[in-house]
Amino acid sequence: MTLATAEHILTLERTLPVAPAKVWRCWTEPALLVQWFCPKPWGVSEAVMDLRSGGRFFTHMVGPNGEQAPNEGVFLELVPGRKLVFTDAFQAGWVPAKPFMVGEITLEDTAEGHTRYTARALHWNAEDKAQHEAMGFHEGWGVATDQLLALAQTL
Amino acid sequence: MTLATAEHILTLERTLPVAPAKVWRCWTEPALLVQWFCPKPWGVSEAVMDLRSGGRFFTHMVGPNGEQAPNEGVFLELVPGRKLVFTDAFQAGWVPAKPFMVGEITLEDTAEGHTRYTARALHWNAEDKAQHEAMGFHEGWGVATDQLLALAQTL
Repeated sequence: MTLATAEHILTLERTLPVAPAKVWRCWTEPALLVQWFCPKPWGVSEAVMDLRSGGRFFTHMVGPNGEQAPNEGVFLELVPGRKLVFTDAFQAGWVPAKPFMVGEITLEDTAEGHTRYTARALHWNAEDKAQHEAMGFHEGWGVATDQLLALAQTL
Repeated sequence: MTLATAEHILTLERTLPVAPAKVWRCWTEPALLVQWFCPKPWGVSEAVMDLRSGGRFFTHMVGPNGEQAPNEGVFLELVPGRKLVFTDAFQAGWVPAKPFMVGEITLEDTAEGHTRYTARALHWNAEDKAQHEAMGFHEGWGVATDQLLALAQTL
């Protein structure tokens, strides 16, 4: 039995000149996450992270003109310091919700003690992937990653 | 923040006159699962169970006239002896797949040492729930549960 090949994936890969442990903190501590998760001038007014499989991952994004974008989801998998997977396909309690994507963050050590950072967005279909690309995936996740790095370097 | 109420759920609740540990074995050992998982005369020709969050849960159902119904999915949550949650919304590796349902099996002790058995099918929308009901959820899961009980009583 061959599994289907993964499709509809957008990927950002960067080497970040900071230790993986600091990147992990930025991704898993709500007080840090809110500082970098949205490209400015957008921000995050609240983050709830129940760091276990099935635990709630909620972020409330706010725009410069009062735009409100609450996002409910759950964590699917956590490998401390290494890997974090989440999705909006469920609300807490495995309650099905209209899915848009799975986010998968992987941290690896480089020889220099820096972070090989891979962020993938896996979509259910080509339309969602195209929409995410049109919404500015590469620029948006790139800017957010710059913000993450700047914060991690202060830790 | 109030989470949405769970909707589109089909539920089977039974008290099974057998210990939860035996029911758990029937649900988690492939060699046992294939014996009860499909209402006869359908059967299961192969079962693959990687019992961890994100691990593959594959069953290949076969009908009396050669019908073939392979089902790919993953486990979402496992609480040994107590709770098992799976879905077809992903293939192994958290690869998104067209979702139909989440299956949630909960085992509780009764005062007699028997099993309070709750099987829930959570769907993404009303249409899928209605289709599942029309496909014979209550009869099908009921018969399968009878088969599970008969097998568990031999362990």
